[in-house]
Amino acid sequence: MHTPSNPTEHEVIQLAQALIARMSVTPEDAGCQQLIGERLAAVGFDLESMVFADTTNLWARRGRQGPVFCFAGHTDVVPAGVEHAWRFPPFEPTIHEGMLYGRGAADMKGSLAAMLVATERFVQRFPNHRGSIAFLITSDEEGPFINGTPKVIETLEARDEKITWCVVGEPSSTNHIGDVVKNGRRGSLSGELRVFGIQGHVAYPHLADNPVHKAAPALAVLAATEWDHGNNFFPPTSFQISNVHAGTGAGNVIPGEFHVSFNFRYSTESTADELKQRVYAILDAHELDYAIDWKLNGEPFLTAEGDLVQATVAAVRHHTGRAPQLSTAGGTSDGRFIAPTGAEVIELGPVNATIHKVDECVSIEDLIKLTDMYEGLLEQLLC
Amino acid sequence: MHTPSNPTEHEVIQLAQALIARMSVTPEDAGCQQLIGERLAAVGFDLESMVFADTTNLWARRGRQGPVFCFAGHTDVVPAGVEHAWRFPPFEPTIHEGMLYGRGAADMKGSLAAMLVATERFVQRFPNHRGSIAFLITSDEEGPFINGTPKVIETLEARDEKITWCVVGEPSSTNHIGDVVKNGRRGSLSGELRVFGIQGHVAYPHLADNPVHKAAPALAVLAATEWDHGNNFFPPTSFQISNVHAGTGAGNVIPGEFHVSFNFRYSTESTADELKQRVYAILDAHELDYAIDWKLNGEPFLTAEGDLVQATVAAVRHHTGRAPQLSTAGGTSDGRFIAPTGAEVIELGPVNATIHKVDECVSIEDLIKLTDMYEGLLEQLLC
Ligand SMILES: [Zn+2]
Ligand SMILES: [Zn+2]
Repeated sequence: MHTPSNPTEHEVIQLAQALIARMSVTPEDAGCQQLIGERLAAVGFDLESMVFADTTNLWARRGRQGPVFCFAGHTDVVPAGVEHAWRFPPFEPTIHEGMLYGRGAADMKGSLAAMLVATERFVQRFPNHRGSIAFLITSDEEGPFINGTPKVIETLEARDEKITWCVVGEPSSTNHIGDVVKNGRRGSLSGELRVFGIQGHVAYPHLADNPVHKAAPALAVLAATEWDHGNNFFPPTSFQISNVHAGTGAGNVIPGEFHVSFNFRYSTESTADELKQRVYAILDAHELDYAIDWKLNGEPFLTAEGDLVQATVAAVRHHTGRAPQLSTAGGTSDGRFIAPTGAEVIELGPVNATIHKVDECVSIEDLIKLTDMYEGLLEQLLC
Repeated sequence: MHTPSNPTEHEVIQLAQALIARMSVTPEDAGCQQLIGERLAAVGFDLESMVFADTTNLWARRGRQGPVFCFAGHTDVVPAGVEHAWRFPPFEPTIHEGMLYGRGAADMKGSLAAMLVATERFVQRFPNHRGSIAFLITSDEEGPFINGTPKVIETLEARDEKITWCVVGEPSSTNHIGDVVKNGRRGSLSGELRVFGIQGHVAYPHLADNPVHKAAPALAVLAATEWDHGNNFFPPTSFQISNVHAGTGAGNVIPGEFHVSFNFRYSTESTADELKQRVYAILDAHELDYAIDWKLNGEPFLTAEGDLVQATVAAVRHHTGRAPQLSTAGGTSDGRFIAPTGAEVIELGPVNATIHKVDECVSIEDLIKLTDMYEGLLEQLLC
């Protein structure tokens, strides 16, 4: 393995810069997938571009047999926000004091570069590896996640094409590269609650029925409820009210409706249906007149153990000297669409301290280590 | 006393129509006070027009001695709203099936006409009545009540000019003219509560502090508290939340602040300061971080007994056959600015079923009876 003496000349850094320079604000791909596809094709991948509405997806595969090792990721980035607040222009990748700056550096063009370089090296060393290597790349991870990974998975499932092991490149690390590996994610269930009362004048409260007064004790119970205790892999299920609104703005009118938006992040100890029933029971116990619109953003998933987890722990330990912490904390990821097919799924990527923020950046050393870890995974699983 | 055979030709109806035709949407007076002033001057009143900013007020007085009997009222009306929703154009007074329709018919141009006609008749019959008769007319009762009655009272107080008895023409009646007389009003105290937390992402609740969760139990206690039991004259103090707001609109953000607007309508069993202290105690008991902006809209007032109440009960009984119910329920009125000077204050006016609504109207029979009652009051108190 050749490592240039100046790490900024390392090919993973060159490639990450080329990707950051493409202004692929979600759901734009801005040519990223073409760049990735050309390099994959050059090392023997078959390419399949899947365009659904505004979203460009790439499914690339080298090999026809199982097992299938798949790298998954996204080329889209969140908007840069106020550009002049950035230290360096967000779409002009800049290296400064060992860090590569730019929108998407950590989430997740750095990971895409590491996957691609790791694959090129592995294929060069083991052109006749067993099984298959695949790439599942979307430009709609940061957006409404409708036409990205879910549609690609639907397509693969329809033709019974299965992924055995999937490594998602989301920035999983907290302080050092590889300190945290996500081996699952909590479910996310949202509700829009409307509590109905009777509007009236504050001077005539007996003619009105204040829905805020009626709902307050129920909200207190919802906020105080222990939904479950979590388990070895999941923290306890958490309930959070995100928005409330009632009233006409006038100080002398008792509101007729009370709107409450809430969200569950839930462990595998609860199901979405159980949570709904428990919310209904609490609201009913307070004799509220109400309606709820539910949205299930993602069911929880977990890869508790298996070859992929084992290989990942080994690769991280080998390149950092320490085993990673396996965690299911944090937001959702596209892993939630892949895991239900039966695939083992883990997420391993850079430190996430600056993602979605001004001055997003990634450590050059970390990206080089990540490339080595990814290559190590391929070697352990496909040799 | 001459009564025309056709009640629609009664002079109080003619005058009420002339006032309704003047489009005096608050704080406009639209010439109403000039019309009233000219007729008062013709029967021996001294006029004093008091203009404060956008508000026109009229102070008129006949006589230099005490006791001072004062009619109080307002020429401004609330907007007509959607004019085509009205059965008859709101500023074209129309008589239909015994009712006079138009914006202000019941609140309170009908009362103004009744006061004026009653006074004209009384003065004709008793040109040398004892004491004085006064009119305190404003064009800012429906508005922010800054430059109307409060400023006139301030002016009178500065020169030590006192009102002994004050009859406010607000529409006090519920089903029949004179069935309810207001002999006081509850106080009104508003608060704008802000509860502070720490904003965050719903996926990381341990890094945030949800102010809605923290405040919900405190709101439940506030809504369930018995503030007092009222007394013979006042219903119990009532607390109502009028508006609540929290959240950025995004479903994945824990709000950093929670805004709650509330209002007390309070009896003479509580003071504004006591209510404030009790709210503080409840919020403190829940260990909330908060701030409250208070607004005292009016202290409660009560004319429990005295010559004016006695005369009013007698006049109503004489003209309707039944004693009125004395009540302090309902919204605030300008009586709250007059009572603190030491005046006895009652409110006697038409049925309030249609006030501030489309198709506002008043019974012609009722206006004629109201004129007779007002005249009866003058006779009992100034003869
Ligand atoms: Zn991402
Ligand atoms: Zn009024």
